[in-house]
Amino acid sequence: MAKIRAKVVGAGGYGGVGLVELLLGHPEVEIVALAAAADVGVAMSDLWPHLKGFCDQTILSYDDPRAREPADVVFFATPDGVGMRHAEEEMARGARIVDFSGDFRFQTIERYEEYSRRAGKPLRHASPHLLPGAVYGLPELEDPRLGADSRLVGNAGCFAVSVLLGLAPAAQRRMVRPGRLIADCKTAISGAGKKPQSGHHYPARYENMNAYRLGGHQHVCEIEDALERIGGRPHRVVFTAQAVPMCRGILSCLYGELEDGWTTESVLDAYRDFHARHPFVRVFDRSAAVGTAHVRGSNFCNLIVDVDERTRTLRVISHIDNLVKGQAGNAVQNMNLMFGLPQTTSLYRFGSNP
Amino acid sequence: MAKIRAKVVGAGGYGGVGLVELLLGHPEVEIVALAAAADVGVAMSDLWPHLKGFCDQTILSYDDPRAREPADVVFFATPDGVGMRHAEEEMARGARIVDFSGDFRFQTIERYEEYSRRAGKPLRHASPHLLPGAVYGLPELEDPRLGADSRLVGNAGCFAVSVLLGLAPAAQRRMVRPGRLIADCKTAISGAGKKPQSGHHYPARYENMNAYRLGGHQHVCEIEDALERIGGRPHRVVFTAQAVPMCRGILSCLYGELEDGWTTESVLDAYRDFHARHPFVRVFDRSAAVGTAHVRGSNFCNLIVDVDERTRTLRVISHIDNLVKGQAGNAVQNMNLMFGLPQTTSLYRFGSNP
Amino acid sequence: MAKIRAKVVGAGGYGGVGLVELLLGHPEVEIVALAAAADVGVAMSDLWPHLKGFCDQTILSYDDPRAREPADVVFFATPDGVGMRHAEEEMARGARIVDFSGDFRFQTIERYEEYSRRAGKPLRHASPHLLPGAVYGLPELEDPRLGADSRLVGNAGCFAVSVLLGLAPAAQRRMVRPGRLIADCKTAISGAGKKPQSGHHYPARYENMNAYRLGGHQHVCEIEDALERIGGRPHRVVFTAQAVPMCRGILSCLYGELEDGWTTESVLDAYRDFHARHPFVRVFDRSAAVGTAHVRGSNFCNLIVDVDERTRTLRVISHIDNLVKGQAGNAVQNMNLMFGLPQTTSLYRFGSNP
Amino acid sequence: MAKIRAKVVGAGGYGGVGLVELLLGHPEVEIVALAAAADVGVAMSDLWPHLKGFCDQTILSYDDPRAREPADVVFFATPDGVGMRHAEEEMARGARIVDFSGDFRFQTIERYEEYSRRAGKPLRHASPHLLPGAVYGLPELEDPRLGADSRLVGNAGCFAVSVLLGLAPAAQRRMVRPGRLIADCKTAISGAGKKPQSGHHYPARYENMNAYRLGGHQHVCEIEDALERIGGRPHRVVFTAQAVPMCRGILSCLYGELEDGWTTESVLDAYRDFHARHPFVRVFDRSAAVGTAHVRGSNFCNLIVDVDERTRTLRVISHIDNLVKGQAGNAVQNMNLMFGLPQTTSLYRFGSNP
Repeated sequence: MAKIRAKVVGAGGYGGVGLVELLLGHPEVEIVALAAAADVGVAMSDLWPHLKGFCDQTILSYDDPRAREPADVVFFATPDGVGMRHAEEEMARGARIVDFSGDFRFQTIERYEEYSRRAGKPLRHASPHLLPGAVYGLPELEDPRLGADSRLVGNAGCFAVSVLLGLAPAAQRRMVRPGRLIADCKTAISGAGKKPQSGHHYPARYENMNAYRLGGHQHVCEIEDALERIGGRPHRVVFTAQAVPMCRGILSCLYGELEDGWTTESVLDAYRDFHARHPFVRVFDRSAAVGTAHVRGSNFCNLIVDVDERTRTLRVISHIDNLVKGQAGNAVQNMNLMFGLPQTTSLYRFGSNP
Repeated sequence: MAKIRAKVVGAGGYGGVGLVELLLGHPEVEIVALAAAADVGVAMSDLWPHLKGFCDQTILSYDDPRAREPADVVFFATPDGVGMRHAEEEMARGARIVDFSGDFRFQTIERYEEYSRRAGKPLRHASPHLLPGAVYGLPELEDPRLGADSRLVGNAGCFAVSVLLGLAPAAQRRMVRPGRLIADCKTAISGAGKKPQSGHHYPARYENMNAYRLGGHQHVCEIEDALERIGGRPHRVVFTAQAVPMCRGILSCLYGELEDGWTTESVLDAYRDFHARHPFVRVFDRSAAVGTAHVRGSNFCNLIVDVDERTRTLRVISHIDNLVKGQAGNAVQNMNLMFGLPQTTSLYRFGSNP
Repeated sequence: MAKIRAKVVGAGGYGGVGLVELLLGHPEVEIVALAAAADVGVAMSDLWPHLKGFCDQTILSYDDPRAREPADVVFFATPDGVGMRHAEEEMARGARIVDFSGDFRFQTIERYEEYSRRAGKPLRHASPHLLPGAVYGLPELEDPRLGADSRLVGNAGCFAVSVLLGLAPAAQRRMVRPGRLIADCKTAISGAGKKPQSGHHYPARYENMNAYRLGGHQHVCEIEDALERIGGRPHRVVFTAQAVPMCRGILSCLYGELEDGWTTESVLDAYRDFHARHPFVRVFDRSAAVGTAHVRGSNFCNLIVDVDERTRTLRVISHIDNLVKGQAGNAVQNMNLMFGLPQTTSLYRFGSNP
Repeated sequence: MAKIRAKVVGAGGYGGVGLVELLLGHPEVEIVALAAAADVGVAMSDLWPHLKGFCDQTILSYDDPRAREPADVVFFATPDGVGMRHAEEEMARGARIVDFSGDFRFQTIERYEEYSRRAGKPLRHASPHLLPGAVYGLPELEDPRLGADSRLVGNAGCFAVSVLLGLAPAAQRRMVRPGRLIADCKTAISGAGKKPQSGHHYPARYENMNAYRLGGHQHVCEIEDALERIGGRPHRVVFTAQAVPMCRGILSCLYGELEDGWTTESVLDAYRDFHARHPFVRVFDRSAAVGTAHVRGSNFCNLIVDVDERTRTLRVISHIDNLVKGQAGNAVQNMNLMFGLPQTTSLYRFGSNP
């Protein structure tokens, strides 16, 4: 069988290189083009020397005709505003699309605009007519539209993956009151991307942790939409993003007010049941020793599920690698579903430790 | 005027060395003895070489007669169970006591036992009769018993300092419903003390964050007691301790359900009013860029005070150096009050950055 | 064809888990037993949770009969003094041996004893009669005895791998005067093993670098022996080990006095020629941007080869992952040669970055 | 007595803020102006929030008349090319100058140009006539011109401080052959300054060490000049700069070929004798446990002095805080000498640990 021809736009960033690492090991995929706005003409392995001998292809300008050759799948590992301008053209040439930005995570233009406003740099969506056909790309939500018929997937954001894998069971089973869920989320610095900035300059970040963008986190839109879809009622999430001096990892502490009738045991059972079909999600009780190091470099999400009986509070602690399950790994998982492959193809791997 | 003669028991640990650093710079204090269970006979500056030429005193066994000479103040920079056995004897010889452990943070034996049980290694208190006379040592709570008449102070725990400076105004002004406050607290590793352990071995900790002791955090007792004292009604706190790979710093995110009538502005005003008399607490709104690096090495606590109007949630983010305002600095601040000195003596310093 | 049955003694340490990671991905190997002195009865994946679902075998006591079943290869991922006591028995049952310690790195008892003395805890070798038959396990030295006939291999030490890959070409081609080679070597902390110790406690190590064991580094013996074998004349090495706050990586700067006649170009050519047959060694000139991150998680060694013409000094900078090419990866490479497999089997992989 | 009026140009960078921290604690100094090219109009304490309440002065453009008011001392905490353009004017108004860059470290234009060429961005010196009157600012070299008559001091570079404190005794006492000294120097990342760059972006630097600028390190000029001045014969230094993931600290390993007649003891004695009058230099033998953490935040330099008898090699290991003894602390020490104050004023402090 012919291999899936994959094109990566935004190949030079953290999302791009993580994706290339996974695609190089994917038995059904060949990379036909790497494109980016920066580092054009540079070999991928000069930009990322650990790939020397493994991926020596040259990064093309996306305007280069060689970058516009047809592909079976195009990954836009790009910031907001890129995929929306090129997805239609690529689809017209037969490609399926996985976009890493917020461009295709929303089904209506209103929700996109709310997201874009909260992100702090409002964009006018270039292809609003594509939104109703786009699918939110988080396989564990089991949206039936995410499968062999999907042509356009908005890969879930890293914070949203972390929060939704931890709260989806609670929303679906209506374990918690929907009015005030709290998502206290700590991310490693690779989540901010590859571009140097003063707050992530090594000496500034080395011994510092801080909350950021308290006024307007855009991730809330994506999370609340998905919770409503899965649970059938609207939720409100207080979201606090924090940066800690690590390279990879998101640890999210999720809190909700437990509905009557639930116990520690029934909550744990419901979580285990919900995630039983999800090969990358592991559920632990509060006695387990779990840390982000255990999922580093892998597509796994480890959840600790706990109930504080004194206050009738559900507490879930979610651990992912922001660059794998939070980004490139989840994208490949989506791609596998879109091409009818087992979702674990090329992904069912452990990371490395220490 | 004669200097205050200070004795430090537990001199070799992180609490002890931090205290020695501050006392060496204190114009009214002289260190008369350093004692510890480990490293007996070693010069302080051999154990802590940065002090070479500044503190070359030998660490004595606390059983050594030279360590039992009278002092004006004895600091027990020791774990639970030490101060409770020796405080009375030192007081009988005229000393005032500042104890770093949980031994004297509670006014009743019942509360101490609840604390001790939650700490996971229940101790029988050796001097329960001293508890009613002990004062909880966090100056910003403005307990009138903490002052020139205090003879026995239980220095507040680092997590409790972080949480209480952030929640005391809310409790006192009754801004939040008391049933479910959430304290999501991230600590640097020095908070675990100097003794090596597998979870804090460098390669194991380097790229790892995790929650720990989910079932039984003892800090809740201390926090709930203080909130009740200051606000006049009982509170319940969900507490999640997390370890992040840093040396110093605690970042706590505190959440509560806002009572009717409060706005972002009135909340900020009330916080600023409460802390106006507290030289080490700074209050910021959510637009401020604040991180733990800004308080590193100093006795300051920086608070961001915010209201999420959509969910009527109070969100306070508290930043301290766990070894200074969270431990030795707070202890010296207590000592200053106990000896009628300005509470800022030897403490009103900035840290260093980067 | 039947798979190679592999037994790992010392499975729970950093060497052991690194080896297990590689063997799990090796198409010709099955792990038949994991043994260790600590953590007996614990599942490997409870000790190392990233392996959950991938290696759930129980760690056995090496005294357990199940740990004494015959195997085709036994890896002693153990400290000095273990392999020497058990290698003969395992060989008698048909196994080939790869030992991670210094037990079988020397061909004579005199050299072993010199090594052991410099290591600071002199041991009496339990099986000196095996030494003449042992082979030093660094494939790039191209010792003809390392191959399908080898039954007992002393896997090279991590510092020695780093230094020898950088100096072997100079020794073989007689580029440098042998009297005073300088090896200034910086290691990440995983090189010290998994056992917690005060110097590698996170807060103590976080912002600290230091040289250590200045008086007696044992690695000199191993390095000087190999240089003499390959170059035919004795060498003397000044060795300085330094610890830096990282998890993985060794960076060694190697200096020698250049013999007459050599130029930057001829030196580079000779290095490229020497390493042309070595799939895991890459040679760069001084203009290349090379760091330990580029080899992290892989079996590669990246060398920068440079000449300081002003002082006629050869300067080589060597980069490895101490746990892969410096330990488990090199061990698997040796095993591949011992079983007639391509030496790259299961090893020709890139790491991950960032 | 009136205080010394100090002006800081380049106040916002790491050099500037380190200097401000020290001057704020200096009993004889008042800061009269802070100037910089960036962050003009910003309060120092908004740029560096740890100084809030301690230094709230506004950063002025250096073109601002308020920044041109006369001062007794002007510190140019600026890169190459700034001080050379303004020193004369400031001196004409009565100021003494301490410049942090290479602008005034050389006494002849030829040496400056060699330095500038090796630095990779050759500059034409704007005030070559000032060079003969400039003094190299490293107090421990005991240049008689560095004192109350000095008006223009080129503050020593951080690498040069680290190397010269370690090699000056050897040069002066002619312990080592001058043809090939090796300086293998590892610096923390703050040495690269405050400006973000891709190589020091947190995720890129976190788990990476590397050598850099192998072809042209400018520090050699400064080091060789000083060694020749102190020893009376020319030296040649092989210099290797390496970056390690830390915030503060330089560890330099220095190697030289020992002249006949010297022993471990006589070398140590000579070092102790040379540095006996230097309050900030401590000399240890190789048995001492010394690391960069012991000098962090202080103006001390700790030296380990060792001889490898087998190869007749002198090995000195030098530890400083690159931002204190390597920069701002050394600058204040120079200033103290220029104003006839004890050189330890405001500087004889320990850092903090952990």
